[in-house]
Amino acid sequence: MTTAARGTAMAAEMAEQPGVLARLLDRGSGIEEAAAALGADRATGFALVARGSSDHAAAYGRYLLETATGRPVSLVAPSLHTLYRIDAEYRDWIVVAVSQSGRTPEIVETTRRLGRAGAHTIAMTNDAASPLAAAADALVDLGAGEERAVPATKTVTATMLAMVLLGTCAGRLPISAEELERLPGQVADVLGHAGPAQDAAHALGDTSRLVVAARGFLYPAALECALKIRETTGVAAEAYSTADLRHGPIAAVGQDDHALVLAVAGPAADDAGRLARELADRGAHVLRMADASGADLPLPAALPELLAPIAAVVRGQQLAYALALGRGIDPDAPRGLSKVTAT
Amino acid sequence: MTTAARGTAMAAEMAEQPGVLARLLDRGSGIEEAAAALGADRATGFALVARGSSDHAAAYGRYLLETATGRPVSLVAPSLHTLYRIDAEYRDWIVVAVSQSGRTPEIVETTRRLGRAGAHTIAMTNDAASPLAAAADALVDLGAGEERAVPATKTVTATMLAMVLLGTCAGRLPISAEELERLPGQVADVLGHAGPAQDAAHALGDTSRLVVAARGFLYPAALECALKIRETTGVAAEAYSTADLRHGPIAAVGQDDHALVLAVAGPAADDAGRLARELADRGAHVLRMADASGADLPLPAALPELLAPIAAVVRGQQLAYALALGRGIDPDAPRGLSKVTAT
Repeated sequence: MTTAARGTAMAAEMAEQPGVLARLLDRGSGIEEAAAALGADRATGFALVARGSSDHAAAYGRYLLETATGRPVSLVAPSLHTLYRIDAEYRDWIVVAVSQSGRTPEIVETTRRLGRAGAHTIAMTNDAASPLAAAADALVDLGAGEERAVPATKTVTATMLAMVLLGTCAGRLPISAEELERLPGQVADVLGHAGPAQDAAHALGDTSRLVVAARGFLYPAALECALKIRETTGVAAEAYSTADLRHGPIAAVGQDDHALVLAVAGPAADDAGRLARELADRGAHVLRMADASGADLPLPAALPELLAPIAAVVRGQQLAYALALGRGIDPDAPRGLSKVTAT
Repeated sequence: MTTAARGTAMAAEMAEQPGVLARLLDRGSGIEEAAAALGADRATGFALVARGSSDHAAAYGRYLLETATGRPVSLVAPSLHTLYRIDAEYRDWIVVAVSQSGRTPEIVETTRRLGRAGAHTIAMTNDAASPLAAAADALVDLGAGEERAVPATKTVTATMLAMVLLGTCAGRLPISAEELERLPGQVADVLGHAGPAQDAAHALGDTSRLVVAARGFLYPAALECALKIRETTGVAAEAYSTADLRHGPIAAVGQDDHALVLAVAGPAADDAGRLARELADRGAHVLRMADASGADLPLPAALPELLAPIAAVVRGQQLAYALALGRGIDPDAPRGLSKVTAT
């Protein structure tokens, strides 16, 4: 790959997101059928299996599914099933296994074992012909098209939207059909204004550390923003819930450290705003990603809090991309990473 | 506090751990009674509520309770209940709320709300007169004595052992009574040989970053080791499961970075060993905490894998303590932290 081509695949895949989201809304991707067939509206509970970026989409799914159903959601620890082979009992549970490639062996094996333990299993994947799709009882096909860049982008936001749609099938979410329909256009707006991400990348200078913090629904978006920055640039970006950060790790944030705080209007906004001030009081440089005016990384104002994480993840991709290019790194293929992980 | 007194409280509390663990084994701390009264052996599932170090003890509890019962365990997201106030349905679930002080307001409120949502609630705390103890249906009193140093030590290992005991009441764990009885002595052995921790602290030099990695049962111990180092020294120590680290964040580990890999004999050992080699191949300096000969930070050889995390957490405390003193920091009261967090 020549220097001129740096980041071509990642940029192209980021740009496809409005179309991918619109298609998913349009055809529903089999989610209603899968949910109805498996009895999602009367399940004892949901357990989610994932790793990496998919794990962040799963964490978002957890907030959505608990809100929709009121029932506890478990994020599965694969090693219990693949290494320790515990005698699991998952009757009447729905297991949602998330993997863009559908080929991470441990995710496939965990799904098979939980199916044998009585769970109804759904594969949420970008490859309908993958081993994961074959291992599960039902398939949610993300239909995002092939993803070539190592940092997952369009498959992450597609998975996030699929979780929203699954939530609406499993129970009730406070989101209207009109709000859902506006989402692809709002993501296009974010993508169309890359200036703030370039400015923010410039403000981060040559920092080797970054703390990313958010509360509630935006917390999974903070996890994904941190991972995207870390894997594209090598910056040690770490995400925390604002409450967890205060509970200890904030001790490591000091003068001239960098932080990124995510917030949108809603019950979590006050807490995030307070944390941003606490970090600034410690001498840190704080970037704000928010729907409020004056935000360093603006988010669409008319976006409900439950959907804001999808737009926030796109802003985070933009920041990671700008930061990588600014440092002379090819974001399509960062050092030492490949697209499918063996464990 | 004078310079000579640096770390006095943390050192004293670390040294109390064998006695605290032995007392907990001896009197059971009300766990059997609580579990029997709440029907732990026939619960639909367990949900754990915690934050900070207690959250790592809860993550360990999750591995134990899933192993013991075969049922999914959920780690509760407090914001869903305190900020978003979702309409939760927890009938026939057992909620275990963990807080050494019993005074973190959000943990208390979450426990109250889940109790009203139908859950049977257990408070696992070091203060039987705390609001958390009052809010729950049953009490597991850690009885560790007052903890004065900001970094939690004896209450963490006491909570971890309480989780083991709860696991044995809720189902079956592959640990014998003899193995449990040996634990306090093994922890005393670790505490009695601080030399390796001092050498490891020396080897870490003035690094500002550290990656800590483990798989399976030791993963929660890796989380706690990283937090202890972070809050006592300000080093940006981050913990990963070996599988998650390979799935992206390893891109940020390069030449002359520092890593700590935890492993003991058992199903997860091969994977951890492989990761240590991968990190070394990237040019990182790798410290090994293990029960194998030649480990930089040795763990007792006769310790079953399920109990090894407790000894590993103690080794991690030793390393954090040595690193803090070596950098002229008072580990009893690191900058910007207080003992009870308001959220």
